[in-house]
Amino acid sequence: MGTEFLKIKECDEAIDIIQDLFDKNLTAESEEIAVTESYGRILFEDVYSRMDFPPFDKALKDGFAILAEDSFGASEESPNTLEVIDFLEAGSITDKKVEKGKCIEISTGAAMPEGAEAVVMVEYAEKLDGKVNLLTTATPSQDVAKKGSDIEEGNLILKKGDFLNPGKIGVLLSQGFETIEVYKKPTVGVVSSGNEITLQGEDLPFGKIYDVNGGMIKNDAISCGADAKFLGVMRDNYDEVKEKITESLKDVDVLLCSGGTSAGLGDVLKHVLDELGEVYIHGISVQPGKPTIVGVIDGKIVIGLPGNPVSALMIFNAFVAEPLTKLAGIDKDFELETIKGKITKRIHSQVGRMQYQLVKVDGENIQPIFKDSGAIFSLSTADGYVKIPKLVELVDEGEEVEVYLFN
Amino acid sequence: MGTEFLKIKECDEAIDIIQDLFDKNLTAESEEIAVTESYGRILFEDVYSRMDFPPFDKALKDGFAILAEDSFGASEESPNTLEVIDFLEAGSITDKKVEKGKCIEISTGAAMPEGAEAVVMVEYAEKLDGKVNLLTTATPSQDVAKKGSDIEEGNLILKKGDFLNPGKIGVLLSQGFETIEVYKKPTVGVVSSGNEITLQGEDLPFGKIYDVNGGMIKNDAISCGADAKFLGVMRDNYDEVKEKITESLKDVDVLLCSGGTSAGLGDVLKHVLDELGEVYIHGISVQPGKPTIVGVIDGKIVIGLPGNPVSALMIFNAFVAEPLTKLAGIDKDFELETIKGKITKRIHSQVGRMQYQLVKVDGENIQPIFKDSGAIFSLSTADGYVKIPKLVELVDEGEEVEVYLFN
Repeated sequence: MGTEFLKIKECDEAIDIIQDLFDKNLTAESEEIAVTESYGRILFEDVYSRMDFPPFDKALKDGFAILAEDSFGASEESPNTLEVIDFLEAGSITDKKVEKGKCIEISTGAAMPEGAEAVVMVEYAEKLDGKVNLLTTATPSQDVAKKGSDIEEGNLILKKGDFLNPGKIGVLLSQGFETIEVYKKPTVGVVSSGNEITLQGEDLPFGKIYDVNGGMIKNDAISCGADAKFLGVMRDNYDEVKEKITESLKDVDVLLCSGGTSAGLGDVLKHVLDELGEVYIHGISVQPGKPTIVGVIDGKIVIGLPGNPVSALMIFNAFVAEPLTKLAGIDKDFELETIKGKITKRIHSQVGRMQYQLVKVDGENIQPIFKDSGAIFSLSTADGYVKIPKLVELVDEGEEVEVYLFN
Repeated sequence: MGTEFLKIKECDEAIDIIQDLFDKNLTAESEEIAVTESYGRILFEDVYSRMDFPPFDKALKDGFAILAEDSFGASEESPNTLEVIDFLEAGSITDKKVEKGKCIEISTGAAMPEGAEAVVMVEYAEKLDGKVNLLTTATPSQDVAKKGSDIEEGNLILKKGDFLNPGKIGVLLSQGFETIEVYKKPTVGVVSSGNEITLQGEDLPFGKIYDVNGGMIKNDAISCGADAKFLGVMRDNYDEVKEKITESLKDVDVLLCSGGTSAGLGDVLKHVLDELGEVYIHGISVQPGKPTIVGVIDGKIVIGLPGNPVSALMIFNAFVAEPLTKLAGIDKDFELETIKGKITKRIHSQVGRMQYQLVKVDGENIQPIFKDSGAIFSLSTADGYVKIPKLVELVDEGEEVEVYLFN
């Protein structure tokens, strides 16, 4: 009885305990995917350059590849005349060499031919039949990108934890990477429970309601970078819950169960967790969402969310989103996105537990949405929630608050 | 010649022309998808509630469903005693009626039985064998959510253009929606060109480089909400470009070609566009990225991006990302994401054309990345770019600038 009581946690405590359970029980894994399909994924390894880039001395301009000294003294008034012995397009090669008095016409991007030191831009040259008049001087390496000047082989080019945006994908492609190791998306299963739950597409008999939490929490887990699936509905009885959980945990790292609106699941889940694993949290001192339960079975995390959809969404966002996002590799310093603004209407809160108040954000104005937590349609307009600490009774109109934004 | 000259556009002009070409030629389409798979998609229709919610008078607490008047006068000292004629769990129904002197025990979420007006919480009741002592009075509707009190049938619940976040998905599920019309992702094809281009996985002969733009720009288009695919490499000659474009436009709304580092593609593309459609922009007064070309063939947009990957990425972000994102339905008021900060090192710019300067963002500090635009590895760290207007020669250390962030 004493121990049981200790499992009711304050909000901050619960946040720490859940992060700790994720850290201790779940290890981020990696998978190999095609670089061209990697947008938004997170690198699992430091990446080093495989080769010099450019991979050869590269002409930066269309023009003539020359020995620098062959241009010395040249001007419009007194051009230097060279023999043009070949033409090199980008991607082509030649076995001819540039020697004194000779040059090769070259396109941007082509490899500099043997012997050549510089490019004289076509704008500063006068083409003749088989010859060219250089109208300007060039220094060695002029308009040439030297082999390895952008990056040399063996350098760190991207880091573990990097978000693969188009530019970083480009960097990998330039080095010829076909595949890359990224964080594997954590697997999350979502199960709904309650005898009143009916699935979309079925008739809705009197007294029943459609399941919301299965699809909603699944998509919230997806928004955190998880590979989430809805695993169906279970009834609130011990045997069915035990079987469903045992079965589900074969496939997922994290299992999110949510009760119907009835109080039943919390108790059943508690007993199943006690039998199969360990309960770490049984109740959080928060409104809404008090009956939340958190346990571990064989190194997998099992969380019982409230049945009420608004409560389930807030508890997921406040307690599960952050550790899940971190497990997905998304920034070790990840924090829930917040913005600040001023409350437009006074909020009353019950002293003694943290209150999460749904709000709509309208620029600087933060409008509380006052509906009981069963009012699913508040989610049509809600942008997030504000936290009203345990000992605060009132947030007055005009007070500045921090809004935790929903994904 | 005069007309040709007019097709070189200033940046702002080019932005307007491209948005206009998107608006006039491409119409957003919709597709029907499963609500449970809709995270991050954009609603294509206003959605109205199909039914009252709750769909029945619903008990909000575990307790006893009574006629309100049966509780009048009840207190701990002087309880009112009622006969308990049934027990209703959530999802269950009964054919028994609550009448004077009788009540039905009820669980949270259950439909109120016929005749019952209010719920007295179990905490304020004392269960006896077949009877219950009510210890408090209740008013009509107490702890009952009336049918339709959250939403009535036929109300606007979500709007065209809404981003489907988990909460809005929950709203749709609560109304039994299985599928929903969302914006179809615009189809984008990406083709690379250049004789020096080699695909990853192949050997890299001397003088060749790996293709970057195909995979990079494809992923950038994906980041804008498009369904993008890489359609391969074409050589820079007229017949091959014409055939590849004709073939590609059968499958996509927008075709993004990018040249190799050679100057060839721009000219070839110009002639193909002239033959098959119309050229609207041939050159933008911007550094890097000047040789950009924009045309329309049979109502499809064809854009020739620079071959240089850094230039291609910046031109895509500056000119294509916004109209593409809007076509994908993502917020009519969409603007590229920007942040402000202070430049840490003086930037010189050539007067006469807009310059885009790659930068790395470090808190408030905006560090310019000074590398020639062929330096792909600047994309390892670049967070975006700042625009240096046509007539500005210098941005001094400490000046405030706006950074356009890459996706």
